[in-house]
Formats: sequence, structure tokens, C-alpha cells
Amino acid sequence: MADREPTLAQVGEFGVIDRIVAGRRQPAAVTLGPGDDAAVITAADGRTVVSTDMLVQDRHFRLDWSTPHDIGRKAIAQNAADVEAMGASPTAFVVAFGAPPDTPAAAAQALSDGMWEEAARCGAGIAGGDLVSAPLWVVSVTVLGDLGGRAPVRRATARPGDQVAVAGDLGRSGAGYALWLNGIDDHDELRKQHLVPKPPYGQGFAAADAGASAMTDVSDGLLADLGHIAEASGVVIDLSTRALGADHDALTAAAAATGGDAWDWVLGGGEDHALVATFPGAVPAGWRVIGRVRDGAAAVVVDGQPWQGNPGWQSY
Amino acid sequence: MADREPTLAQVGEFGVIDRIVAGRRQPAAVTLGPGDDAAVITAADGRTVVSTDMLVQDRHFRLDWSTPHDIGRKAIAQNAADVEAMGASPTAFVVAFGAPPDTPAAAAQALSDGMWEEAARCGAGIAGGDLVSAPLWVVSVTVLGDLGGRAPVRRATARPGDQVAVAGDLGRSGAGYALWLNGIDDHDELRKQHLVPKPPYGQGFAAADAGASAMTDVSDGLLADLGHIAEASGVVIDLSTRALGADHDALTAAAAATGGDAWDWVLGGGEDHALVATFPGAVPAGWRVIGRVRDGAAAVVVDGQPWQGNPGWQSY
Repeated sequence: MADREPTLAQVGEFGVIDRIVAGRRQPAAVTLGPGDDAAVITAADGRTVVSTDMLVQDRHFRLDWSTPHDIGRKAIAQNAADVEAMGASPTAFVVAFGAPPDTPAAAAQALSDGMWEEAARCGAGIAGGDLVSAPLWVVSVTVLGDLGGRAPVRRATARPGDQVAVAGDLGRSGAGYALWLNGIDDHDELRKQHLVPKPPYGQGFAAADAGASAMTDVSDGLLADLGHIAEASGVVIDLSTRALGADHDALTAAAAATGGDAWDWVLGGGEDHALVATFPGAVPAGWRVIGRVRDGAAAVVVDGQPWQGNPGWQSY
Repeated sequence: MADREPTLAQVGEFGVIDRIVAGRRQPAAVTLGPGDDAAVITAADGRTVVSTDMLVQDRHFRLDWSTPHDIGRKAIAQNAADVEAMGASPTAFVVAFGAPPDTPAAAAQALSDGMWEEAARCGAGIAGGDLVSAPLWVVSVTVLGDLGGRAPVRRATARPGDQVAVAGDLGRSGAGYALWLNGIDDHDELRKQHLVPKPPYGQGFAAADAGASAMTDVSDGLLADLGHIAEASGVVIDLSTRALGADHDALTAAAAATGGDAWDWVLGGGEDHALVATFPGAVPAGWRVIGRVRDGAAAVVVDGQPWQGNPGWQSY
């Protein structure tokens, strides 16, 4: 019986933490894991990259769409993408989880399992956390990362003449969202990619190695996120619909099924956590060229023109 | 007019962040601050200490008792205490803040001001964050810290014969909570200490330097937190009411006013974020001896006996 499952309140904070922590294998970078006031992480090159993201129930995920395991994977993946976008590799995550006292303890375990599965994909561990009572689910993750001796790849250093390239998927999450919203059961892979993004792990590091001049991850939408690079660098970024044709074409069936627009998803849909970067030289394997950096007043244009469609995700 | 103040929704995520970030001076350890996908923090000795705590409205603070500035200070202080408790010094914080769209933007600014004020007390900066929509206030902070070349002071290494000592206040937050709950306007300092704890910054580092064998901060209550050391170390911790007499006597007036028990607050009240440690040798300046570590089955006792009062804070 679902209503007889032990709850967080019944198992208690420390009991739940004991269960979640039991049997986990930390990577070498986590020299002291959960169980003390703080964890200790190796920072081999004398610097630590750090970023944090909060996910709130019914705003960033729905418990009737996502399993707790999905939510755990998503929370880790989107934080990991922020570290990748600096040209670094994740080493460890810490997690704060707020949930109602009547939440099944098994749901917290599944959330943690999802987090560990995703963290393992990028070679990192969950080094610590906090578990508190809240009227709805709130998952707040902080990621630490290692630059491996290189300079961080920032947003402010794209230069005219650079090629613009992307690694990872575009528009899938937006298309998947439209499918969920319309109650359409087809297109499993797109619906799954809305729930659990697939950042191209390792490609941030590869881009930095290949001399990327600027980089970010696609969290708010390709145009919005490239807008940050364009503004910070004082350049025009000109995207090519021809180069993005394959991304568009992968979504036309979902567009037909939902009445959505494949270009809106490719250019405006966020949450895929692809990486987009500018390269003065050759683009490394796993990246596809989608445009060019030009001189001019900061802007992102498509085929030389302002885009008229959906500009991307708004936080409020 | 209060209802005409610009809200988070009106100013927008990036507008609010721009205002919060403007004019802040980062400490040297923050080599790359807000404005990119992630921040970069110096980790001079090749390790980073990390801990995270989430504060939820009406669970960890009340907006009719605390100002946003108080909440910001509290969130930073309690995270800083976790790093101090390892014998380390805070270097930087990252902050995720969830709040309703109709929250005044000025409230987010005041929260940030409080965070910066408290971070400055420990020589650290706010290196980055996330701002999201949520149906109530949720403040999730992660602290990074520097061990300065020393080993972390853990919980599992207290030894029979060690002295037990405390730095910082005990029971003030518990007494202050009772005053607030009873609507008593006297005892300003105690009521303030419930809203904004005063961790003894620098004493974690000093304790490590003095050879502390184990340490933690008092977040759940002195008996509960020493219980973690007793269990992890497999020792008895024996506290002396005589040595704690001054802590008790500072609270007797508040106990009389509220019908509370000063010993319950000293031994069971959490959230003061004092540091408590065990020392094989001399206790450094700023610490007061409150008991002794003895051989035996893991337990915390008071004058050699189990304590019958309030055992401390429960998360669920």
C-alpha cells in the first residue's frame, strides 16, 4: 500500500541520510564525504569552479511527469553543464532537498539514486547535503569543478571571425514539453529529454582544449544564451538556419503533432543544456558549426536578420 | 506605497541580479565572480571544504519576525559555522533564492545586503547564485572554505581524557525563540540572537591550530551535536553544569518571563552555531572548558548522568 510506505517524518532526517549515503562509492576527488560538518574536495590546480541551481516543484518539474529519479538526474545534469561551460570537469556536488514530511522515504532514495547515476556519468560524486521540511519539493544543487590547469572559458571573449558551434541537442526539451502539455504519448525520446537533459559531458573540456574563445550552456534558449555572449563580448552572432536544418528537421513531427513551431524550439527552447561556444580555430570533434561571430552592435541574428519568434525562457 | 514597489516579476531575474551584484567588492579568493556560467575560487592548499544548508520560510525563519537582511545574515552565518567546525575559513558562498514573483525587488536587495555583511565578517564574498520563482521563500546557501594546509578536524577523533570546550554562545537562540513565541518585547539581544546567530568566526581555525581532536558546531543543540562526536568517536562526553553555570544564568530572566527552562536552552537549544571541540592539550583563548571526554559506550551525560530534558531540534 502506497500510504503505508515509511515517510521522511517516520524515518527521520538522520535515518534518511544514513540510507541515502549507504554503499556509495566516492570518486578520488572527494577526500571526505558525507557525515561531518562539511566535505573536503581535491582542488588539484589550486582553483575550484562553483555554480548553483535551484529546482522548485511545479516550476522546474512536475511530480506527475517526472519520477524522483528523473528529477535527481536533471538537477545534477543542469549544474554539471554550468561547469562544463567554463571548460571544466565536475568533481563533486552538494545537494539541499526540501520536501513535505509525508513524502515517502523511498522517493528521497530514488532522487538520490538519480543524482548518483548522473554524477557518475561525469565522474563526480555527491559529497554532502541537507535535508529539510518544506511544503513542496525544492532541490538545490551546487557543483564544484576542476579546470585542469587551463583558464576558464568566459562569455566576454568571443571575437569577430570566430565560428559558432554547438555540442549536444537543441530544441528537444521544448518539443518534449509541448508533447507533455498536450498529453501526447508518442515521441518517447523527446518527452524523456524534457525530463532529463543530456549535456555533452566532456565537450566543455574538449572545447577549452581546442581554444574556444567563449562558451555557455543552453539553459534559457539558444538565442537568449548566445545573447549573453554577444552582449558580454560586444559582437554580433549570426546563426545559419541552413546549418541548424538537421536540428529543426528532428522536431517537425512533434511540431505537427502539437501545433508547435520547430524553429521556436531550436532557437528559443531552453533546458537542453547543450554547450555553445565560439572558436577562432578548428572546431573539435563532437561540435557542429551553426554560425559566425561578426563585428557590430551586440546582437544575435538569424541569417543576418533579427528573429521574430519565441525569445526563450523567463524566470518570472 | 508598499504595493507600488517594483516586484521581482517587474524587474525580472537578470535585472534583480544586476542590482544585487552592482558595486560589490569580492575578496582576493574570488578570482571570477557573478556573471558567467560559474564562479572560480582560489583553493590555495589544493583542497576545498564545502557544505550546504537550506532555509525554508515558516520552518527556519518567519517574515513577520525577521527582516530580509536578518535572513541573509543567518543563512550565511550558519553555513560559515559548518566550515569553521572543520578548522577551516570561509572563502566564498553561492546562494540560490526562491521567492514569489510579487516579492518586492528591494527585499531581495536587503537579503543580499545581509548576506554580504555577514560574509564580510568572515572575510568571504558571494561568488554567484540563482534566482527562481517559488511559492514561498527558500534560501539555499553553499559555503566553500580553506583549510590553510591543515588536516580537517573531524567528529570521529575525540579521545578519552580530552577536555571539551566551547567558543560562542549557548542557549541564546532557544531563549530568543521562546520570547518571540510569547510576544515578549524585552530581552532585545536574545531575540536578535534567535534571528541572527553569532558564530565565533576564526575560532574554528584557532582550535585546529591548538590541536583540537574533534569539533562540530551547535546547530541542533549541545547534547545532540556532541552526541554525533560521542557516537563517531566511541566515547562518553561528560558535561559539567558547574562549568555551564554562566551560560545558564544569562538565561534565567528570559526563562522566568516565558515559563521556559534555561537548562533546556543551554543543553538542547540549537541554532546558536557556537563551536564545540575536544582538546588533548591546552584550550586556546576564547574557549571555555565545559566537560571531559571519558572511556565507555558512546553517550553524552551531564554531571555523569543522562539528561532528562529537551534533546534538541528535530528536522521532521
